[in-house]
Amino acid sequence: MAADLLVFAVPGIPEIAPAADLARVIAGAVRSATDPQRAIEPGDVFVVAQKVVSKAEDAVVRLGEVTPSALAIEWAAAAGKDPRVVEVVLAQSKRIVRMDRGVLITETHHGFVCANAGVDASNAGGPGRLVLLPLDPDASARRLRARLRARLGVAPAVVVTDSFGRAWRIGQAEVAIGCAGLAPVDDWRGRTDTDGRELHGTVIAIADEAASAADLVRDKGSREPAVRIRGLGRQVPGGDGPGAAALLRAAADDLFG
Amino acid sequence: MAADLLVFAVPGIPEIAPAADLARVIAGAVRSATDPQRAIEPGDVFVVAQKVVSKAEDAVVRLGEVTPSALAIEWAAAAGKDPRVVEVVLAQSKRIVRMDRGVLITETHHGFVCANAGVDASNAGGPGRLVLLPLDPDASARRLRARLRARLGVAPAVVVTDSFGRAWRIGQAEVAIGCAGLAPVDDWRGRTDTDGRELHGTVIAIADEAASAADLVRDKGSREPAVRIRGLGRQVPGGDGPGAAALLRAAADDLFG
Repeated sequence: MAADLLVFAVPGIPEIAPAADLARVIAGAVRSATDPQRAIEPGDVFVVAQKVVSKAEDAVVRLGEVTPSALAIEWAAAAGKDPRVVEVVLAQSKRIVRMDRGVLITETHHGFVCANAGVDASNAGGPGRLVLLPLDPDASARRLRARLRARLGVAPAVVVTDSFGRAWRIGQAEVAIGCAGLAPVDDWRGRTDTDGRELHGTVIAIADEAASAADLVRDKGSREPAVRIRGLGRQVPGGDGPGAAALLRAAADDLFG
Repeated sequence: MAADLLVFAVPGIPEIAPAADLARVIAGAVRSATDPQRAIEPGDVFVVAQKVVSKAEDAVVRLGEVTPSALAIEWAAAAGKDPRVVEVVLAQSKRIVRMDRGVLITETHHGFVCANAGVDASNAGGPGRLVLLPLDPDASARRLRARLRARLGVAPAVVVTDSFGRAWRIGQAEVAIGCAGLAPVDDWRGRTDTDGRELHGTVIAIADEAASAADLVRDKGSREPAVRIRGLGRQVPGGDGPGAAALLRAAADDLFG
């Protein structure tokens, strides 16, 4: 019998400024809840949008400080883009996957394949700013988990997420780019189905599914960057775990890409 | 303020036989719940695994009735596969995307890109059987929705799901292959962020995220093919809607694939 899953936004998160203490903000919002069901519980998972993690880490670029390269200028002119934005995207990338029809899909230095290397001008805290992905999102998740534990007395799991486009399918889905305390995958290989037949190839991307579940309660027009998921206790084994890096498929093994 | 999401399995679903009335089975399980919170409510979404929908529709192939083609025999020998299984996969496909290292990724006649055209031998109801994807999963979802409405007095939304591998990422995530009554996407293009800046390119794959959320409460080792999600009311506008077909990206528009 599976446990119910309860997914709810953490209310009252203000605009996050550079060097903000995100754990203090989130723990404060949790503590100020009057409903006793909103108190922290073992096994709770905090799903936090990359944007506020990056802002707190000041992973923000001011366009006025960017000097575009010749490649960035050339491609930006063809695509009708700001060459400084293209320069920032290229600087965040180790490999260009597609550069076509005004869309730039790259592999980031972390190994994520996504549009514009995850660089985003929306909700950036002001015009002329671009928010980058955190330098090491698994480390961000581990730090946030440790600091939340210190403030709340219980170690939650933490997932840092972003919206990625997908091959072959319309729309973006939220995925995990950083993770601490939640098992990133649930590996059913070797276990058997209800007929006693071994299950092959069934590795479930738990952290990505948790990211997607959290996104369903988040109103993108308001400030709800943090969401809690309760009921994933069997996927919250204790330590930090391998992080979302375990969700990255090496290019050589990638049959879908 | 976003609504909380509550996700819970529908208990007590028996093995589904060919021509089973899935709506009767699911509605019976809902009605037999003693907890009044488990009664049907407007806006409830039923997320149903493809496997039971296919079994009820008898979308099942007996291997003994399959005669493999020369291509299926040749590739199966090289990959160490059963040529009859390969034959069934090829027959379900309109395009081979990858055929390498024992893995066969194809585009199905519906337009889904997935491993083995969604053909699956696990939990197939017995040895020597393969479960296919439903012929028209959106039609399956619409039928199930209409029949659940007739039995429950409230029209729920219905999502039919399967686990697909993804490009660039480890593990499978559950996605929507059929959908009725739930908006498959939430289109934020043209709306503005908290800085008043227009949000570009933000189309959220709601039905896929709902499929993933439901998967988190499903125990693959037991029989929990149906899951309910409560709290997605703003994505349940009334009619059947465009279905999961709206999530298929035409190959010509696909920059990720």
